[in-house]
Amino acid sequence: MKLARAIGLAPALIALPSMGYANVGSAGAEASLDTVFIFNSLLFLIGGFLVFWMAAGFAMLEAGLVRSKNVAMQLTKNMSLFAVAATLYYLFGYNLMYPLGQWFVDGVISAAVGVAILEPVAVTREMVDDYAYAATGSDFFFQLMFCATTASIVSGALAERIKLWPFLLFTVVLTGLIYPLQASWKWGGGFLDQAGFLDFAGSTVVHSVGGWAALTGAIILGPRIGKYNGDKVMELPWSDLSLAALGTFILWLGWFGFNGASQLAMGTVGDIADISRIFANTNAAASGGVLSTLILSQLLHDKPSLTVVLNGALGGLVAITAEPLYPSLGVATLIGGLGGIIVVFVTIGLDKLKIDDVVGAIPVHLACGIWGTLAVVITNSEANILSQLYGIGVIGLFTVLASALVWWLLSLTMGLRVGIETEIAGLDIAELSSEAFPEHLTSKAVKAQPAEA
Amino acid sequence: MKLARAIGLAPALIALPSMGYANVGSAGAEASLDTVFIFNSLLFLIGGFLVFWMAAGFAMLEAGLVRSKNVAMQLTKNMSLFAVAATLYYLFGYNLMYPLGQWFVDGVISAAVGVAILEPVAVTREMVDDYAYAATGSDFFFQLMFCATTASIVSGALAERIKLWPFLLFTVVLTGLIYPLQASWKWGGGFLDQAGFLDFAGSTVVHSVGGWAALTGAIILGPRIGKYNGDKVMELPWSDLSLAALGTFILWLGWFGFNGASQLAMGTVGDIADISRIFANTNAAASGGVLSTLILSQLLHDKPSLTVVLNGALGGLVAITAEPLYPSLGVATLIGGLGGIIVVFVTIGLDKLKIDDVVGAIPVHLACGIWGTLAVVITNSEANILSQLYGIGVIGLFTVLASALVWWLLSLTMGLRVGIETEIAGLDIAELSSEAFPEHLTSKAVKAQPAEA
Amino acid sequence: MKLARAIGLAPALIALPSMGYANVGSAGAEASLDTVFIFNSLLFLIGGFLVFWMAAGFAMLEAGLVRSKNVAMQLTKNMSLFAVAATLYYLFGYNLMYPLGQWFVDGVISAAVGVAILEPVAVTREMVDDYAYAATGSDFFFQLMFCATTASIVSGALAERIKLWPFLLFTVVLTGLIYPLQASWKWGGGFLDQAGFLDFAGSTVVHSVGGWAALTGAIILGPRIGKYNGDKVMELPWSDLSLAALGTFILWLGWFGFNGASQLAMGTVGDIADISRIFANTNAAASGGVLSTLILSQLLHDKPSLTVVLNGALGGLVAITAEPLYPSLGVATLIGGLGGIIVVFVTIGLDKLKIDDVVGAIPVHLACGIWGTLAVVITNSEANILSQLYGIGVIGLFTVLASALVWWLLSLTMGLRVGIETEIAGLDIAELSSEAFPEHLTSKAVKAQPAEA
Repeated sequence: MKLARAIGLAPALIALPSMGYANVGSAGAEASLDTVFIFNSLLFLIGGFLVFWMAAGFAMLEAGLVRSKNVAMQLTKNMSLFAVAATLYYLFGYNLMYPLGQWFVDGVISAAVGVAILEPVAVTREMVDDYAYAATGSDFFFQLMFCATTASIVSGALAERIKLWPFLLFTVVLTGLIYPLQASWKWGGGFLDQAGFLDFAGSTVVHSVGGWAALTGAIILGPRIGKYNGDKVMELPWSDLSLAALGTFILWLGWFGFNGASQLAMGTVGDIADISRIFANTNAAASGGVLSTLILSQLLHDKPSLTVVLNGALGGLVAITAEPLYPSLGVATLIGGLGGIIVVFVTIGLDKLKIDDVVGAIPVHLACGIWGTLAVVITNSEANILSQLYGIGVIGLFTVLASALVWWLLSLTMGLRVGIETEIAGLDIAELSSEAFPEHLTSKAVKAQPAEA
Repeated sequence: MKLARAIGLAPALIALPSMGYANVGSAGAEASLDTVFIFNSLLFLIGGFLVFWMAAGFAMLEAGLVRSKNVAMQLTKNMSLFAVAATLYYLFGYNLMYPLGQWFVDGVISAAVGVAILEPVAVTREMVDDYAYAATGSDFFFQLMFCATTASIVSGALAERIKLWPFLLFTVVLTGLIYPLQASWKWGGGFLDQAGFLDFAGSTVVHSVGGWAALTGAIILGPRIGKYNGDKVMELPWSDLSLAALGTFILWLGWFGFNGASQLAMGTVGDIADISRIFANTNAAASGGVLSTLILSQLLHDKPSLTVVLNGALGGLVAITAEPLYPSLGVATLIGGLGGIIVVFVTIGLDKLKIDDVVGAIPVHLACGIWGTLAVVITNSEANILSQLYGIGVIGLFTVLASALVWWLLSLTMGLRVGIETEIAGLDIAELSSEAFPEHLTSKAVKAQPAEA
Repeated sequence: MKLARAIGLAPALIALPSMGYANVGSAGAEASLDTVFIFNSLLFLIGGFLVFWMAAGFAMLEAGLVRSKNVAMQLTKNMSLFAVAATLYYLFGYNLMYPLGQWFVDGVISAAVGVAILEPVAVTREMVDDYAYAATGSDFFFQLMFCATTASIVSGALAERIKLWPFLLFTVVLTGLIYPLQASWKWGGGFLDQAGFLDFAGSTVVHSVGGWAALTGAIILGPRIGKYNGDKVMELPWSDLSLAALGTFILWLGWFGFNGASQLAMGTVGDIADISRIFANTNAAASGGVLSTLILSQLLHDKPSLTVVLNGALGGLVAITAEPLYPSLGVATLIGGLGGIIVVFVTIGLDKLKIDDVVGAIPVHLACGIWGTLAVVITNSEANILSQLYGIGVIGLFTVLASALVWWLLSLTMGLRVGIETEIAGLDIAELSSEAFPEHLTSKAVKAQPAEA
């Protein structure tokens, strides 16, 4: 569970200091107060660099799954969106998300406008913002990475046809406003938190938000040329599955930080044991997703598919994210395994609706995000299905409406989609001055593709 | 040295709590008991995610060293075997490996059957399984990664010709039974541990076990078509050395966790200083392997070979794994350097015997695993050569017999090897529905290879 | 700020133990002395493995930016130079850099010759080398990585034309003598430290030194065939921008360790809060570099360039390295952003001078290293511009002279540059026995390049 930092919803943590003081003289078993603060901050720094690494994972996954003629553009988008997210979250997002005792209308809109400000250099324990928690810089660093993850999800679905600059402008709004505002409703102690909605590390708050924004964008953009031929779904080629597999391994690794550091504290026996459970469960769920998709793709098509297995791992990871702490290892494996199965069938369903999602971001992050949020009720007795549905619905509706508005405004003003000739020639040549593989005769290979037929 | 957790073979660690209690009132220099527990668990979590990352390293190394037509299959095998290992180690392996006070016949077979069960959520210090050690979840997470590493070693040697499903069924037995059983003999406090066999982080228990299983499989499978032309050894091409180099760097990085966290404790000055020695020595040994193979391949062939240098680094890492703590930096460099030389000559020897090991897993993990285990006697005065030979021999014999039985049963029932046409066309098209590089005209490039002549 | 370990220039840290002792009995808030020691050592181990990872980042970046015919050689150079650095820093560098109370002539030349020796196994707190600091092994491990980074910078600039063995011999001198000697002037407490020169994590001490050595080498070597056609600058192709982007993400990740662990202490509230600031600022500066180059390349060429954006991120990272602690997030973003702009214009300037730097190492590491070192005066009130210029000048002059001497001696004896035919055929075939992509018809693709026209 994310800490509602502002509004005193975390009695256990706030009780910690006094417990510590009281017992130091007797048993001496507790970590000292400074030590707890250091452990918590260190957790955010380690968790944060692992989640940063997920940005590289998305970049590799997406670069591997687009055609060679769009690889450089996909890499450019991924690195740029991260920089946009970092800057916008600094400028607006962080304080919008954590109003911290400032004006907060009915738990809906924070008036805490302004840039993020860290503690001064060489701060003392008396002067830190929250001695019962962690260094502000470590919290900012960690939370920023979640914001960036949301944006990374969008880029894959819309690949190979969206223009660079409108995409980045959408990212500005997503990371500066849409993400932090809805996140404040849960993790800033807002009305969804007060309504009992549970989402430990963000199946809904992060993954489904990215997924909804991607879905909205994919519908507005339309499919790539050549993807749907009448009722026939064409499999457009990808550039390199070793990159895609690398990206998946990177994401898997980063997810230990994503879920593990969402425990938000590491200074007690209970906290480190909980983090350990989370690491083990996260790994189990990813493994479940691999196994279920491996078997299912064998059963459905007589041969396994690597792209399906990769998305199965990711689906398992998204599914466990809303509650990685309470499940047993076996149940975590099953939740992840079912996530993989959901990925397979939602992918088929999207193709039926002619919604073209290049990398499978919508099945993975939206569908499994919903499944994972619902699955909380299976293992966490504090969860109730109505609160979960309420949270999923409110955040989904808000994200779809806000995204649609931004996509529509961009569409009216700059246009969202590259021209037909650009799409056929590839975005690397037409919209960028860099081809990814200039020696490899990309253009020739490209001509053999169904998209250009 | 791995902790014999069950049977009280670690007096220093068990004495720790009382030392801590006694001294807290006086000097106050020790870390508090909770802090020690948190440090130990954190060591396993960091070590564990680094060793997880090695799974990606093996995947990249192997994908880079197979031909393009088999890259997707090799990636599929690597991701799948990890998921199998995670699940089987949960179902059977963990409790088999650490009988923990349960029935244990003469230190040989544990009756501790059952799934791994972690500590409950928000556990207190009074209720943790082992307050003098670490959170059970962190230990499970860390130990699981060693089991998966063993399986990763096998996949490379047998690449480009073994069927997916029999390989995964072998992995089921390897990770659910063979690995944990023999590991219990040493790290579970079994009869090899009692016989004075020393293997700090697993030159024998992990690497040689993977190597023996790979050797047995490679002999039973036979070489790839075109690898041996009469007495002539053909060099079959690989897909991409940048992937192979990336994989080697990943493995090198992960090895800091593999060896460092095998110290099993981080809560005292002595432990963190030892871990620091291990990090530095592990790095020195890898560097020694790089330098010796760089020079040796220059001397032998007048030009260095990158593939040899990569395996030199890995050979150095395997060689230091049995005793990364006691050597000085210089001796560690030499142990690693000799590991590299061993890799070169064992590779030549295997080719003389027409045993086809696609990535060099047998020279690296088996030969250097044996070398490293013997090298313990050079630097650790507690080691004796007879105990080392006994451990190497017992584990080797058991692994060869058990593996041969499983390979043979699979061979009788499902068949192990793909058909000739499949092997020539490549496993990606024939056994999988995913080509790694569908745009890159793989099939054309493939036709130019000696294998297909 | 790097700790001047030898000469007592770090009063805050040395005061720490007694503070700890004094207060343990009263409030009990401080971490215990052992805990501080463990935290500091852990910081170096985590920081060290992150900076190790940068070696992989340089390898991927450079492999991606050279032509396919030189990829295997570039990978060989990167892995070999790391092994050379590890060994030479052990043999000479470490003790040369940190004279530790030994003879040190006017803060210029240390007489502390001899190999690095770590603390004995299972050391006690009474016997560690520096109980107020960290385990010697952890410090060695961390500092070694900085030395290796310096060497990695050189390899990229001189790619595609320098012979392997002379390059490695240069690396021997660079890592065994040039780097550690000049580093001792600042971080060993030498005359530049005493002159008030500030360089927190090495914009000058690491990055500009690599940059100066690269510049000297690039001038002596001359440009690649085909790079300059009269006054026209030809863009030679690269092998793979997905590798280059991966390398950049790896470097970005590793930089958190590079800058963060240069705080050199993690055992107090102030230290962990400072490290948190550094992580956040490092990330902000990289993001600033991405955004400024993205916009600038759009303005200059009407289309963004991915290679420029990648170097923009790296330029931002180098620029913040001299002072990642004091800036606010906004100022850090601007310092990084200006770094990106500097990269663009210095790249143009170098081409005007016909200095051929294959990967842009000189604009990134030298130019932004200078910029970052000067920028310290903007945010850190202890800095003065004259001391900064003095440090930049002394280290630059020394590195240029020493490098030129070594390059010249190598040029006279072994020759530095491969023959014309080798350069055209590619170093992988001519100087190595490994092609990176033997199936991909590299030679054919190569023929289409301007270099060979």
